Amino acid sequence: MKKAGVAILGLGVVGGGTYQILTEKREYFKKTQGVDLTVECVLEKNVERAISLGVEKEKIATSIEEVVSNPNVDIVVEVIGGTGVAKTFVTMALKSGKTVVTSNKELFAKHWPELEEEAKKMNVGLFFEASCVGGVPIIRTLQEGMQANKILSIKGIINGTTNYILTKMANEGSSYEEALKEAQRLGYAEFNPTADVEGFDATYKLSILSSLAFNKKICIENVYREGITGVNKEDIAYGKEMGYTLKLLGIGKDTEKGVEVRVHPTFVKNDNPLASVNDSFNAVHLVGDSVGEIMLYGRGAGALPTGSAIVSDVIFAAKYDEYFYACFENNEKGNKETKFASDFTSKYYIRLSVADKAGVLSKVSGVFAKGSLSISEVKQVSLDEDKAQIIIITHLCNESLIKKALEKLKTLEEVYEVKGVIRMED
Amino acid sequence: MKKAGVAILGLGVVGGGTYQILTEKREYFKKTQGVDLTVECVLEKNVERAISLGVEKEKIATSIEEVVSNPNVDIVVEVIGGTGVAKTFVTMALKSGKTVVTSNKELFAKHWPELEEEAKKMNVGLFFEASCVGGVPIIRTLQEGMQANKILSIKGIINGTTNYILTKMANEGSSYEEALKEAQRLGYAEFNPTADVEGFDATYKLSILSSLAFNKKICIENVYREGITGVNKEDIAYGKEMGYTLKLLGIGKDTEKGVEVRVHPTFVKNDNPLASVNDSFNAVHLVGDSVGEIMLYGRGAGALPTGSAIVSDVIFAAKYDEYFYACFENNEKGNKETKFASDFTSKYYIRLSVADKAGVLSKVSGVFAKGSLSISEVKQVSLDEDKAQIIIITHLCNESLIKKALEKLKTLEEVYEVKGVIRMED
Repeated sequence: MKKAGVAILGLGVVGGGTYQILTEKREYFKKTQGVDLTVECVLEKNVERAISLGVEKEKIATSIEEVVSNPNVDIVVEVIGGTGVAKTFVTMALKSGKTVVTSNKELFAKHWPELEEEAKKMNVGLFFEASCVGGVPIIRTLQEGMQANKILSIKGIINGTTNYILTKMANEGSSYEEALKEAQRLGYAEFNPTADVEGFDATYKLSILSSLAFNKKICIENVYREGITGVNKEDIAYGKEMGYTLKLLGIGKDTEKGVEVRVHPTFVKNDNPLASVNDSFNAVHLVGDSVGEIMLYGRGAGALPTGSAIVSDVIFAAKYDEYFYACFENNEKGNKETKFASDFTSKYYIRLSVADKAGVLSKVSGVFAKGSLSISEVKQVSLDEDKAQIIIITHLCNESLIKKALEKLKTLEEVYEVKGVIRMED
Repeated sequence: MKKAGVAILGLGVVGGGTYQILTEKREYFKKTQGVDLTVECVLEKNVERAISLGVEKEKIATSIEEVVSNPNVDIVVEVIGGTGVAKTFVTMALKSGKTVVTSNKELFAKHWPELEEEAKKMNVGLFFEASCVGGVPIIRTLQEGMQANKILSIKGIINGTTNYILTKMANEGSSYEEALKEAQRLGYAEFNPTADVEGFDATYKLSILSSLAFNKKICIENVYREGITGVNKEDIAYGKEMGYTLKLLGIGKDTEKGVEVRVHPTFVKNDNPLASVNDSFNAVHLVGDSVGEIMLYGRGAGALPTGSAIVSDVIFAAKYDEYFYACFENNEKGNKETKFASDFTSKYYIRLSVADKAGVLSKVSGVFAKGSLSISEVKQVSLDEDKAQIIIITHLCNESLIKKALEKLKTLEEVYEVKGVIRMED
């Protein structure tokens, strides 16, 4: 039977879940996987926390040196997070010839190439399933399940906090502020929610996932980012009436015009399987040139779901003696030959506040026609005596043309305000 | 760079798709996977078909002996189907030290243990991703993505033909016969549709998937099977009104009472992600004790989707030099120690045709009460002057108690007929 000794760096939520799975299921893994996994040591300043989880005192290391010099440790699990000590520790572990398993999306999004270089040099494994979409095996699927495909697009609900907030706004008509408060109360959002609601977290994950999907290093600087703080409940309600659900999507497309990678609020058609992914659930929808559509759905966060992904990597690393690395050209600033689309192609939802009088709709649609923008749907709602709302849904068009049209619209006397501009996916 | 020579046995729909992917993407796989895959030979009686696909004449083998004795062949892909020559050929390939990749669910459901024995003896790989749910990497997910979990349940829409028929019946109010005809016209159903509509195909897949999920050999004899030929559009419509969608589900549960494995028409609640899996799409929903809910969704059949799964196995086999086998006790008749639940636990939908007069509902519900069956919802619809329909939805209960209650109901003078009895899942 294969054996592997594991060290866990950090016993926070995910580290605790990982420790629990590894210790409680040791016999189960021996029986079902043919591998014997032991936790050899943990690195955690909060000794009380470690002891309360059941870690024996002599297994609590006091320094990273102690961990990486331990000959019984084969695999180092890093669940500290961030790019400070985590980066130092991971690098030291790799340099010491330890295989690393990490859940650290920020570290991976920012420093993947240099970490991979170290891993290659020492011929050790570098696994990061837990960095994206928690317990959902999306990395393994991209690496070992869809290799026969060129991936044409990836669209994901890859942040649970924002999906919880948007679901609440849609189902209960809450405002953004109300829904955020509730998410914070339930522990789905942090006290400082910026990383989630401004789309940074999703950007890290999309950078990793689209790099794997397109076999090109996509840096976070290449990802267009727009969070959900500007979303309002009126647009969600109008969209609902017209058959669309608002989601914060991470979108990657590999088209002839170049690669498009972007994170922003997006209306998806109700018959798209992503539309019914609710609350804090995550999902990733892929289109491969052979397999067609595929979607994976599950929990994107939490002690045990993320622990499940980490332990899955640990078992994989313990079973196979060979390690493979991303085959794309791997430099810190991405592959210079990668062409990025400078002008996104999308459908658009546009809501205008206008004067409620004859001829306005004709004037507005005239602007679209002159801008070579084709409209697929228009809806006019009278709000009170002198104001109305016009909602326009366009066919596929270039973002640059939309921007021009919006500038023009703003100059019309009858258009009071451009209330909402939201990209759409079928 | 690692190299592997591939032989394809059978150039039907799936074999053709596999050949196409392997040949068109050779350079792509060299670049992205670091493996060089060549089709060394094919075994196909229909030489014209082979040539029309672009196979060079000298690569068309005329006997299985020629294939298995070819030293350039490392991996044999079997896409013939059935348990006749396919079994002979696969066994010969394994005995000759070739790794086998197959899409043959029937072969695997019936003869997995003996094939695995042969593979183990020769230390070669035996891969079968394409045997279940086409291009969706469900086997890889169970084997390499969810190992950290005890799987508590598996529920799947694992047959595209029946899902197409049921979707059509639900959306268009078609009868079973009408929907079947349309499915045949479109090529989704075969001229003799028995294997699909009677649930045999789903039974093979569920036997394979639940064996992997529960780490116990589940034989097809252990799977309860009921097809969709008895389904009628009235029940689908009534269920719809009450918030349920009818699907042919493969269900596996590992409970304290034992393992339950069954294929039958099932009402699923509309907020269950399986409810919105429509047309010929497939999906598998898993619950793991660490990861919670996971669902995989995609195309269950077709030349390129199934070819994608086969080529994914070929690449995996070419990359890794070690092979692992199912760790459960592996004998042809299953593990004798496995306990199967003799009495399913489920919610039930029951539709009765009754006399439309006072007191009937009370009498009917009295039978349920006496039988210790708890009712969660009742609906009565008057059809004409003297007939009505009663629809009852129960809470979770044992199937044996339901059967007793149905016997009792049939003896009531006011109950004309038990029209529909359908199990339900939340």
